[in-house]
Amino acid sequence: MTTGQEHTVKAFDQDIGQLRGLISQMGGLAEQAIADAMTALQRGDAVLARQVRAKDKAIDAIEAEVERLAVRVIALRAPMADDLREVVAALKIAAVIERIGDYAKNIAKRVPLIHTGPDRIEALSILPAMAMLASDMVRDVLDAFARRDADAAAEVCQRDNALDDFYNSIFRVLVTFMVENPKVIGEVAHLLFVAKNLERIGDHATNVAEMVFFAATGRYMGDADAGETGGK
Amino acid sequence: MTTGQEHTVKAFDQDIGQLRGLISQMGGLAEQAIADAMTALQRGDAVLARQVRAKDKAIDAIEAEVERLAVRVIALRAPMADDLREVVAALKIAAVIERIGDYAKNIAKRVPLIHTGPDRIEALSILPAMAMLASDMVRDVLDAFARRDADAAAEVCQRDNALDDFYNSIFRVLVTFMVENPKVIGEVAHLLFVAKNLERIGDHATNVAEMVFFAATGRYMGDADAGETGGK
Repeated sequence: MTTGQEHTVKAFDQDIGQLRGLISQMGGLAEQAIADAMTALQRGDAVLARQVRAKDKAIDAIEAEVERLAVRVIALRAPMADDLREVVAALKIAAVIERIGDYAKNIAKRVPLIHTGPDRIEALSILPAMAMLASDMVRDVLDAFARRDADAAAEVCQRDNALDDFYNSIFRVLVTFMVENPKVIGEVAHLLFVAKNLERIGDHATNVAEMVFFAATGRYMGDADAGETGGK
Repeated sequence: MTTGQEHTVKAFDQDIGQLRGLISQMGGLAEQAIADAMTALQRGDAVLARQVRAKDKAIDAIEAEVERLAVRVIALRAPMADDLREVVAALKIAAVIERIGDYAKNIAKRVPLIHTGPDRIEALSILPAMAMLASDMVRDVLDAFARRDADAAAEVCQRDNALDDFYNSIFRVLVTFMVENPKVIGEVAHLLFVAKNLERIGDHATNVAEMVFFAATGRYMGDADAGETGGK
């Protein structure tokens, strides 16, 4: 199957480089989807919202490509230890980014259902800041993956608390708004889900951070004794 | 590493059997978590809700065990084609079941926040039927995985539409209830999320069904031409 150790190593490095490239490309598309979905929501821009939904297929296609490539790499190169963990992490991270793309798509889907302008709902003006926080977590955790940086991954996890606080504030603001404006409860309920989607994006970025940490160290985050597979 | 082809095959069969066993165990725990969370919600049983949250750690632990075992199997046995796809599927399915467990945990977390009894909210009496539908999808898709049954997996996907309809009905019922009972909007908003969690459990069962289909056939569901890796 191979013509020598060096050839194999080089081929593996190329493969892993390609995997990283695909993950980075997916991450970029997911960040853009979050930003565009929020812009569409703020502007009530149904056309942009439709574009976000259409572009989600590109994210799905790259995930399928990552899976095909990862399986081929494992089958052909039989990577061991650190290398294997990284291929497995790529496989799992791609699945999570696909889901982050779905959350952005879900936000975009709600755009045509929300007609109450930002001037009327305080939370609608806070949401973009929350989206930025979530999107930054996605970007930074994928940077951590690209650099195999366990510390940077751990740092992203810590930011999830701030996002949760954001979500809880927005929940209270929206419920108060519903109490005061019963006629738009249906619309505002959709905003609750938008906030929840952003909170879930943060959870998923945290999941990715845990995978990056494991791929880089062979240990589970917060599980200092689990050195079974050997640390770096 | 191995003492012969037969030895390797037998060891692989044992490994895959162990993986299937772990996945089945996880699935059972996830189904129980959904059922217990709904019972706790119906009865306002905070003790049972706490138990659901505590037991989620067991699901997480099995997921970590599946990952360790799958990586070891890939590294030691270098499975090919169908066998490799099955190991990869086990890895991904375990990650999804872990997430299904999280949704059950999220439902349980909301129990102490909801005091409005089932006699007052029509949707609260419909939710258990919706939960049953979601839980059955989880059980049946894991049975399909255990039997490598692509047709059964495809059938589970079709049921997701019924679950979505259920969700849309409940959404409307709850919004109407909020309009008529503005004092309990905060509580009822939590029920909206419970319904959404159940709908997401169905989405995840559908994701698993797609993975089972791919593992069994080497093709992506609904992608008849993608025979690149060869069908069975």
